[in-house]
Amino acid sequence: MAYANETPCSEECPVRKTSKIIEGKWTTLIVRDLLSGKKRYSELQRSLEKISPKLLAARLRLLEKNQLVKRTIYPTVPVTTEYELTLLGRKLEKVIISMSEFGQLL
Amino acid sequence: MAYANETPCSEECPVRKTSKIIEGKWTTLIVRDLLSGKKRYSELQRSLEKISPKLLAARLRLLEKNQLVKRTIYPTVPVTTEYELTLLGRKLEKVIISMSEFGQLL
Repeated sequence: MAYANETPCSEECPVRKTSKIIEGKWTTLIVRDLLSGKKRYSELQRSLEKISPKLLAARLRLLEKNQLVKRTIYPTVPVTTEYELTLLGRKLEKVIISMSEFGQLL
Repeated sequence: MAYANETPCSEECPVRKTSKIIEGKWTTLIVRDLLSGKKRYSELQRSLEKISPKLLAARLRLLEKNQLVKRTIYPTVPVTTEYELTLLGRKLEKVIISMSEFGQLL
């Protein structure tokens, strides 16, 4: 089993590595939204209407730090910021699809 | 796309429903451990060595409340408590496998 676990669970466990990235509230929903293409900050905020601006910014920064999201700033007035998944970020698609399939059982 | 999203993201979104269950720190690692069979509380605690007893108990209660985990108490001295995934809980296996596959890319 790809996820068989030894005791105690090591930092190198691939499930643990992924959980560290996606376990924060909203993170998987941000990835879900970006899977359908580039989004502006305001579009993400509208989609995730109950998320605070501070938390959305923090989640996007963590995704960027983990090289899963790329940020592009356009010199418009006011400035426009767009977010998109990197190639690595897009590999989270299978996690999101499996979450969607499970959620349909609930 | 099974996870295409309307704006704003509705409570009925299957990805959102799943994220509410698994977004808590440690939850996916508990499910990972239970996928290899019944575990005693002490076994889970040893595997997830940095988790506090209070948080482990809270995560197990949430999984139980969502009918993903079943708890069996044996009248030994001291009492022994075992946890196992329900049929619904086992359906999280695909999520854990996809997390494992992604984690191997990191």
